[in-house]
Amino acid sequence: MSILIKNGRIITAADDYVADIFIEGETISAIGKNLPVQADTVIDATGKLVFPGGIDPHVHLAMPFMGTFSSDTHETGTRAALFGGTTTVIDFVLQKQGQSLKDALADWNSRARGTTVGDYSFHIAVTDFNEDTKAEIKVMVEEEGITSFKTFMAYKGALMIDDRQMIGLMQEVKKQGGMVTVHATNGDVIDYLTAKHRSEGKLTPLYHYLSQPEVTEAEASGRFSDMADYTGCPGYIVHMTCEGALNAVRHATRRNQKVFVETCIQYLVLDASLYEQNFEGAKWVMSPPLREKKDQQSLWAGINQGLVQVVATDHCPFMWEQKLMGRMISRKFRTGIQPSKIGWNCSTARGFTKATSR
Amino acid sequence: MSILIKNGRIITAADDYVADIFIEGETISAIGKNLPVQADTVIDATGKLVFPGGIDPHVHLAMPFMGTFSSDTHETGTRAALFGGTTTVIDFVLQKQGQSLKDALADWNSRARGTTVGDYSFHIAVTDFNEDTKAEIKVMVEEEGITSFKTFMAYKGALMIDDRQMIGLMQEVKKQGGMVTVHATNGDVIDYLTAKHRSEGKLTPLYHYLSQPEVTEAEASGRFSDMADYTGCPGYIVHMTCEGALNAVRHATRRNQKVFVETCIQYLVLDASLYEQNFEGAKWVMSPPLREKKDQQSLWAGINQGLVQVVATDHCPFMWEQKLMGRMISRKFRTGIQPSKIGWNCSTARGFTKATSR
Amino acid sequence: MSILIKNGRIITAADDYVADIFIEGETISAIGKNLPVQADTVIDATGKLVFPGGIDPHVHLAMPFMGTFSSDTHETGTRAALFGGTTTVIDFVLQKQGQSLKDALADWNSRARGTTVGDYSFHIAVTDFNEDTKAEIKVMVEEEGITSFKTFMAYKGALMIDDRQMIGLMQEVKKQGGMVTVHATNGDVIDYLTAKHRSEGKLTPLYHYLSQPEVTEAEASGRFSDMADYTGCPGYIVHMTCEGALNAVRHATRRNQKVFVETCIQYLVLDASLYEQNFEGAKWVMSPPLREKKDQQSLWAGINQGLVQVVATDHCPFMWEQKLMGRMISRKFRTGIQPSKIGWNCSTARGFTKATSR
Amino acid sequence: MSILIKNGRIITAADDYVADIFIEGETISAIGKNLPVQADTVIDATGKLVFPGGIDPHVHLAMPFMGTFSSDTHETGTRAALFGGTTTVIDFVLQKQGQSLKDALADWNSRARGTTVGDYSFHIAVTDFNEDTKAEIKVMVEEEGITSFKTFMAYKGALMIDDRQMIGLMQEVKKQGGMVTVHATNGDVIDYLTAKHRSEGKLTPLYHYLSQPEVTEAEASGRFSDMADYTGCPGYIVHMTCEGALNAVRHATRRNQKVFVETCIQYLVLDASLYEQNFEGAKWVMSPPLREKKDQQSLWAGINQGLVQVVATDHCPFMWEQKLMGRMISRKFRTGIQPSKIGWNCSTARGFTKATSR
Repeated sequence: MSILIKNGRIITAADDYVADIFIEGETISAIGKNLPVQADTVIDATGKLVFPGGIDPHVHLAMPFMGTFSSDTHETGTRAALFGGTTTVIDFVLQKQGQSLKDALADWNSRARGTTVGDYSFHIAVTDFNEDTKAEIKVMVEEEGITSFKTFMAYKGALMIDDRQMIGLMQEVKKQGGMVTVHATNGDVIDYLTAKHRSEGKLTPLYHYLSQPEVTEAEASGRFSDMADYTGCPGYIVHMTCEGALNAVRHATRRNQKVFVETCIQYLVLDASLYEQNFEGAKWVMSPPLREKKDQQSLWAGINQGLVQVVATDHCPFMWEQKLMGRMISRKFRTGIQPSKIGWNCSTARGFTKATSR
Repeated sequence: MSILIKNGRIITAADDYVADIFIEGETISAIGKNLPVQADTVIDATGKLVFPGGIDPHVHLAMPFMGTFSSDTHETGTRAALFGGTTTVIDFVLQKQGQSLKDALADWNSRARGTTVGDYSFHIAVTDFNEDTKAEIKVMVEEEGITSFKTFMAYKGALMIDDRQMIGLMQEVKKQGGMVTVHATNGDVIDYLTAKHRSEGKLTPLYHYLSQPEVTEAEASGRFSDMADYTGCPGYIVHMTCEGALNAVRHATRRNQKVFVETCIQYLVLDASLYEQNFEGAKWVMSPPLREKKDQQSLWAGINQGLVQVVATDHCPFMWEQKLMGRMISRKFRTGIQPSKIGWNCSTARGFTKATSR
Repeated sequence: MSILIKNGRIITAADDYVADIFIEGETISAIGKNLPVQADTVIDATGKLVFPGGIDPHVHLAMPFMGTFSSDTHETGTRAALFGGTTTVIDFVLQKQGQSLKDALADWNSRARGTTVGDYSFHIAVTDFNEDTKAEIKVMVEEEGITSFKTFMAYKGALMIDDRQMIGLMQEVKKQGGMVTVHATNGDVIDYLTAKHRSEGKLTPLYHYLSQPEVTEAEASGRFSDMADYTGCPGYIVHMTCEGALNAVRHATRRNQKVFVETCIQYLVLDASLYEQNFEGAKWVMSPPLREKKDQQSLWAGINQGLVQVVATDHCPFMWEQKLMGRMISRKFRTGIQPSKIGWNCSTARGFTKATSR
Repeated sequence: MSILIKNGRIITAADDYVADIFIEGETISAIGKNLPVQADTVIDATGKLVFPGGIDPHVHLAMPFMGTFSSDTHETGTRAALFGGTTTVIDFVLQKQGQSLKDALADWNSRARGTTVGDYSFHIAVTDFNEDTKAEIKVMVEEEGITSFKTFMAYKGALMIDDRQMIGLMQEVKKQGGMVTVHATNGDVIDYLTAKHRSEGKLTPLYHYLSQPEVTEAEASGRFSDMADYTGCPGYIVHMTCEGALNAVRHATRRNQKVFVETCIQYLVLDASLYEQNFEGAKWVMSPPLREKKDQQSLWAGINQGLVQVVATDHCPFMWEQKLMGRMISRKFRTGIQPSKIGWNCSTARGFTKATSR
């Protein structure tokens, strides 16, 4: 099967010109002016922009969470992505405590395989780094083609690994030619502030923001960069939101180090004033939270300067009914009933609300 | 009883001049040229320097450690101090896990009270910060006059507190008008490296040094400064050894923050080349370890620039026979026998060897 | 002649205590409780604070300027200082183009000698550094006791020296054991902005401020520190006003360098909002100009951190009638008549208004 | 006329694949697998790399200098470039004092037009910024298509402009939508050091290096960035050589500023040890001079981090006989005979020796 896209304005990473594109099967086989070819399908793209398919390197599809799942399946999520021109998404496999990476991957494959309508791939989140997990790193890289190992410096008692595990993981990943990616916020400090706010009955969405101040992200981004430098392991910080964190990476570049930085669309265009509503603000609850205008400026500057290399979505949608679970948990806190271990602040953590409206 | 010290060259924090000093009881009551007074004792200090008594704010006397004690008691330690012109020492009370601060203080008082020959005071190390300990902070400040609360970011499983406890302690100490002091090195990373070196049979004193690289101290000093800034609590970093840590504090000063810095004599005059011997290098084993020449230069610059305010000793002597315990533990590791939880690398941790020769 | 000050609360650089002070001639000969001495004069200072005499290291007395003089003579200036407890002032000798340092010093001595009622000393401003001036540095240090050589990086065509002269001066001053002090603002940029504002008819006091933006001081402070570091010459920046300049010095401290920093009272307590009036704002015209609130905070932090060592006044008063000369010059500009070389912006440059009201 | 390049491995800014390239006239009209086209010329590129033509944005062809010219004409220079795959060079028009930009451009065009064998364009160096020059900026941009205005912060009395002119130029260039490029070294300090070394008879190539220490480039790069930020004018620093200068730009990025940085091949691969020979070292004399190994590492890191965007050559060759003129001038200095104003240190300033051997 072949397709000829005629006369579109082609935009690539390096160029901008008008030409025809000839596609055979799934592969572009020629680009040129007035290509002298026949095709099964001919599309006239005159006056239209033609982009390469986008890659969203940060999505969470059908992610199990507190007895529910993030509300896009691999099928609906990849379909939604295609509508926006995103032809590839990279999802995160999450290892459970005590689980092997292989089994975690099998879980995700069981939901994804055969259901997607676009291309997809996986990062794998290492939440339990021990001798067994260490031995699997090589397997993931060589047999499964997964080279990106996600870590959490937050969500203590759930997803978080400590610095001891981080250093160990980095040394092994470097050896196997992979990369360590990170959710870089100081989980201990956030835990303290979350508990403190809870004990004071401060449970509105605003306190989600106030429990994760800029310093928790700046500190952790610097610490991660220090460890990446010490071990020589390539590092990648996901969903960066603020000036302090970007300055920590900027500082790290002085020592001939490169740490890749990803930000997300929401941090570039929205700000924390959205939390100054009542429970309505829960629509914008995500972790890390939205920041200030000055942080938006910093992130744009970082993109402009080549310090931020990637813009992703951290697409992890929850329906409004799911968000309401947060309110119920809040109520339990007020009445002294203990919720499950991962509390409200973390629970509805991520979720870019445009997605929730689907 | 009165003493007249005649005609000495008096050196104070601000001045340098020749005069007489008249002392009644324990108090200087007059300083001047040819003081027209009679005294029980007259000392001719012509041609001699007369200093105020020194204060050593960092000593460990009769500190319990692995079934033994640091080798200076409060009596011998204060006597030794007097020989060097140091008339006051500040020792560290160490809370045990599960112990109240009050009981920990009582332990130390039981060894110190009535035995010292110079002035002394206490910092108190908080190693188990919980609701009970929190309630005692006010008591320590108001009833016991102890305003300085020591924390360890290293020695995991023994003295270390995590960042959650640190933030909680800082908020309470700030409220009570005290100060948090800190041993600032990343305990997780050091634990990882120590275990790694052990597993590889690398047990010579050099590996004590290589298990605590500069970055572990730089990182923790920055993290401590971040938390001190966030909570508004006055901070004090003990025994700083290196350029990286000093730069972390220098960086913190940009945000209108003051963190006090202490270094120790050994870090100003000795360097890590001393570890490149065989077990003889154990004489210089201390934590943090000696560093490089460039670090000495940084610390001197810090003193010169007012960034380092205090020079102390971290006097915590162990006799050579006690140091030899480290070797025995090393042998056990080689033969696969497990030592007690706190291993060799930490055990003989501190100890400035000039003291051990007494 | 002798004086006994009894029972005052004595405040020194290091201490705070109650005692008697016995003074013989011009010298304190004893301090103590109930000093057993007789004195010609006895002053009861019970309940009063007793300070050492203050030193103001930055004043301009009877400074020739545009056909007039700053309005305090050495007599009235030192008298005024005494009223505030300042017993020593350090004035600035200004070398004219083509003049020897010796002749410049003679000029100042001709006005000062025999007229002062307090102690005084001189810095000497080198505005024409050449081979002859170079030869005089040694003479100033060894024969005149003047060790502090002032330079101007601003006031092009009048007082400013270029970087070539600066490096040469620094190398010679270092050799002779002196110190180079500096008015650190980028004279070229200020000249450009002044001329631009003039050409646009922007002549109100606000444009004095806008012609000397923070960056001109930050840049010059960093450049001065670079040159001081390269030559190894001790450096001292006078009247620092802003965060940017302080950060430039903070940055310089990384390379084991100490540059002394002086700020002035006005920069700590007043801000640029005072220029947002009409000609009334001329009362606050000084160079560098008042800055923003954030700069005040930075300077206070610098004092707190030991980065700013000196608070002076830059006392250089002009009467309101003298300030009005600025307005007349402004008018000439509007009508196209050329004023003398040093224009308005520089003319009424300094002047702390408390002084102008005398 | 048409050309078909068959089956080469095509390397672009973003891609790497094997395909055919079809060229009609001077334009690529199609790229694809097995293009079904006929061409006048067919080239089999199997097993070969096919690159886009290179652009060297920094060359000096037939540059008039001290009575001679840099040894490549526009014809030989563009021919040599083509041999290396560089199909476009950007040369520098140099305005003489008192000359209009238009006349300067005419000079260059008189040598370049009709003689080149590859593509070329011009930057124009503004060495005499005044009201007339200011009026020409718009003309250059709109009528001549020259948008890049080169400045020299060094070569005092010849090419250097002062900061007053720099600010004025930046404000005008910004208005006209252009960019200011800069040779960023502190000309005053270099002049001082050059004169000092001359007066001490230190005339070997090593002193070319010692007269332009790293700090002169670091300082000027920071100052240029400050002025670019203040005026909002896009800036581009040519031939950056060292860590200090790169750190100055890195620091500038904190304020949401982008300054483009160019380095040259020689600074990435050669170092200053080449000057430790006798006159043989003159082969490597260029300005700024070669630096240390640590500077090479910094520049590579800068490329890796996206902080250095461009690698050029600063191709400005002189034959060995021309280099020998430097020696003759050196001899004159020794015998007290004054050379022309621009002395040896500047004269044979640039020149990448590979070129000199042609």
